Amino acid sequence: MGAHQYDVIVIGAGSTGENVADRVVKGGLSAVVVEAERVGGDCSYWACMPSKALLRPLQALAAARSVGGARQAITGTPDVAAVLSRRDAFAAHWDDKGQVQWLREHQIDLMRGYGRLAGRRRVMVINESGETDLTARHAVVLCTGSRAVVPAIPGLVEVHPWTSREATSAREAPRRLAILGGGVVGCEMATAWSQLGTEELTIIQHGPRLIPSYEPFASDALSNALGKRGVRILTRTEATRVARDRDGTVRLVLDKGETIVADQVLVAAGRQPRTDDLGLETVGLGPGSWLEVDDSLCVGAVKGSWLYAAGDVTRRALLTHMGKYQGRICGDVIAARAHNRPESTAPAPWTRYAATADRNAVPQVIFTEPEVAAVGLTVAQAQARGIRVRAIDYDLGRVAGAALYADDYAGRARMVVDEARGVVVGMTVVGPSVGELIHAATIAVVGEVPLDRLWHAVPAYPTISELWLRLLEAAGC
Amino acid sequence: MGAHQYDVIVIGAGSTGENVADRVVKGGLSAVVVEAERVGGDCSYWACMPSKALLRPLQALAAARSVGGARQAITGTPDVAAVLSRRDAFAAHWDDKGQVQWLREHQIDLMRGYGRLAGRRRVMVINESGETDLTARHAVVLCTGSRAVVPAIPGLVEVHPWTSREATSAREAPRRLAILGGGVVGCEMATAWSQLGTEELTIIQHGPRLIPSYEPFASDALSNALGKRGVRILTRTEATRVARDRDGTVRLVLDKGETIVADQVLVAAGRQPRTDDLGLETVGLGPGSWLEVDDSLCVGAVKGSWLYAAGDVTRRALLTHMGKYQGRICGDVIAARAHNRPESTAPAPWTRYAATADRNAVPQVIFTEPEVAAVGLTVAQAQARGIRVRAIDYDLGRVAGAALYADDYAGRARMVVDEARGVVVGMTVVGPSVGELIHAATIAVVGEVPLDRLWHAVPAYPTISELWLRLLEAAGC
Repeated sequence: MGAHQYDVIVIGAGSTGENVADRVVKGGLSAVVVEAERVGGDCSYWACMPSKALLRPLQALAAARSVGGARQAITGTPDVAAVLSRRDAFAAHWDDKGQVQWLREHQIDLMRGYGRLAGRRRVMVINESGETDLTARHAVVLCTGSRAVVPAIPGLVEVHPWTSREATSAREAPRRLAILGGGVVGCEMATAWSQLGTEELTIIQHGPRLIPSYEPFASDALSNALGKRGVRILTRTEATRVARDRDGTVRLVLDKGETIVADQVLVAAGRQPRTDDLGLETVGLGPGSWLEVDDSLCVGAVKGSWLYAAGDVTRRALLTHMGKYQGRICGDVIAARAHNRPESTAPAPWTRYAATADRNAVPQVIFTEPEVAAVGLTVAQAQARGIRVRAIDYDLGRVAGAALYADDYAGRARMVVDEARGVVVGMTVVGPSVGELIHAATIAVVGEVPLDRLWHAVPAYPTISELWLRLLEAAGC
Repeated sequence: MGAHQYDVIVIGAGSTGENVADRVVKGGLSAVVVEAERVGGDCSYWACMPSKALLRPLQALAAARSVGGARQAITGTPDVAAVLSRRDAFAAHWDDKGQVQWLREHQIDLMRGYGRLAGRRRVMVINESGETDLTARHAVVLCTGSRAVVPAIPGLVEVHPWTSREATSAREAPRRLAILGGGVVGCEMATAWSQLGTEELTIIQHGPRLIPSYEPFASDALSNALGKRGVRILTRTEATRVARDRDGTVRLVLDKGETIVADQVLVAAGRQPRTDDLGLETVGLGPGSWLEVDDSLCVGAVKGSWLYAAGDVTRRALLTHMGKYQGRICGDVIAARAHNRPESTAPAPWTRYAATADRNAVPQVIFTEPEVAAVGLTVAQAQARGIRVRAIDYDLGRVAGAALYADDYAGRARMVVDEARGVVVGMTVVGPSVGELIHAATIAVVGEVPLDRLWHAVPAYPTISELWLRLLEAAGC
């Protein structure tokens, strides 16, 4: 049995699983991660890294073009081959040896193969060598993530649509691209491919606006910007039938009658948990379901506090950084419980053993042009929770640092203030290069720093961060 | 008398004075600002705005050049004429009508002329119409700022050196420029002019390193970067004699024997208060001295709590944004005391009536390449205050967001942690485009957010702000 028994077994070696394993090993336990594909997961190869690598050169060029004196030095357009080649490097050429090396350096064992629960504290791993049984002394952690939902539209599966994986790893731009879904993936990929060779781009969004979970002004800004870029945006629209002609052309028939003709279709219409073939039925759970966890990341429905889950699979916040956050907490919880630390039993919010930020302070940056950066609650989300809030808005172009940053800088920010507590509970900023602004808001939200104390946090002049001064003035400080 | 009596008289219509006046008017008092030069002050015409306007196009181009895929689209160098013309626009073509309009919109009276104290609550204004006596019912506020120190080097005055004013407003680059002083002004102007036409640039710094009040690694980074740009940096060096030849060439004889030949000299060796002709002697103070104020910005040496000072003139923190901060607090204090609000009498730190951040949490961004951004205390400053601190360092190039931002991104960050309180008391970040990162640290320092709470402030992936995660991990979170 020796080698096949570990303190902790992690299924899924994406960034979440890596973090769980790292923290339990740092906590003095042994750990193995089981991975059927590449170590590093979607983020490294088919999501964050390649998508941002595609977008960054475009953004850098747009930023320089927006400043008089720099603009004149730019005579060309992005070098598409160089952009793709840089993207390939950031995806490590889809080779996980660097990540495997990282596991080794962190004393984490790796077992390649398909992992499946096989009852209490047991995992069966299937690979080309056959089946291996693993037993966990303390915990099994499910970090298998999510995959793109392919909606049940007749003909869609048959045209072999792109998902985020293909959209971020493609080697050339389709001349005509139709995107089903106007969320983050759809908007980012529209921004990228419209500048990398795609000539006709259509976003088909069933709801009334793009990025619907964000403040409406963020949706409006993205719609306008994509529209100016020549992207056609169809809201309140659904495809009812899809087919590919013999010459490769895809035809999408819309509910309103029109047919969209494209060379490729990107399905970016949501995510589903990768739990359908995970052996959940061996521990009394339903295959294919999201995994409900408590704030210690423990799957409460399974007795004995040995089954945990972290990352997308929990549905709490489907973002790499939040998965990693959950992974760190989950790993610390498992190690603390293995060592019988009482403070880990029923941890209070904001302690090291309780995921808290993933309900209250989830930051996200959408790397479009303009960028959208947000943390915490929108006005609508706060109201849905019964919090009495006030929205403070400010025109970012009026901030000196923004005007210096780009000629005709256009942007907007909204701070959402909990009136009763006098603290910021949400912030949304839209504008060129606002991504790095949001962490200040994350600290303010998480730190529950009162507005009258934030009044003393003076932004350096002339940075775009001076936005804070304007928001606080507008809030009546 | 009517029109010549005001609740508050502000001498100096720079950004600090404007803020004082704005806050007292918002507090229900009448105010006049007295200004001998342009409304808006140095920041608008001869400091922050024009200097950053010179630097931003260069930075934007450097940023685009540093990214594969964008680099290939840049074939030219900055358009110097366009950079200067953009700078002129940001200096409002040295016309203050916009600022005058702002005063009017904010119900602040303006009296053009030279203002001088004339005893208790009295100010005499001298202009082309003659002398006008003003009386203040509540307060006189001195916001006259600072000017460049011209060191007592034989011959220096006679060569009519540039100060920050001329360096930021010049219409063409001197072919050879010698800079006396390696502080913020010297480093920023070396960065700008070395890219705008100056071919030979020498910084003469009497101390052992550039920007000596910053962490040593920041000095090193700037020295290296300026050196690569061809700037010659002479430390532990002083000029002992300066003279200009008939053909316009300036010769600077150094204490080590060498002679530097230049077309222009920029003196950037410190600041002195503009209080030498301010009538200080009429209220028992010494002309030419810095004005010592308590945390309510009141000049304690003058009885009756009617004389205030804010901005550079107090020597507390010689930065536009800190002057504005003091101006806001000073204005609120004056209004509150005029209305007998007891909480304004002896205000506690971090209340709205006590300048506190200007001792504990002063942020500054140096707009060089790389940028330097810092807030709070360096290790040396903390130790000098007797605080037991730990420095946490991190190589910024290892952060995924930084690697995506620029090929071969090089940078470094240091977080200074107060061991006893478990809070951040200082942060320094050096690297391309790090300026907007510092406000997060300012909020953490001002908010005194404990490290174990900061652990829940998750940075969005993949932004450069993920630096925070790495620093906290390195701190043992």
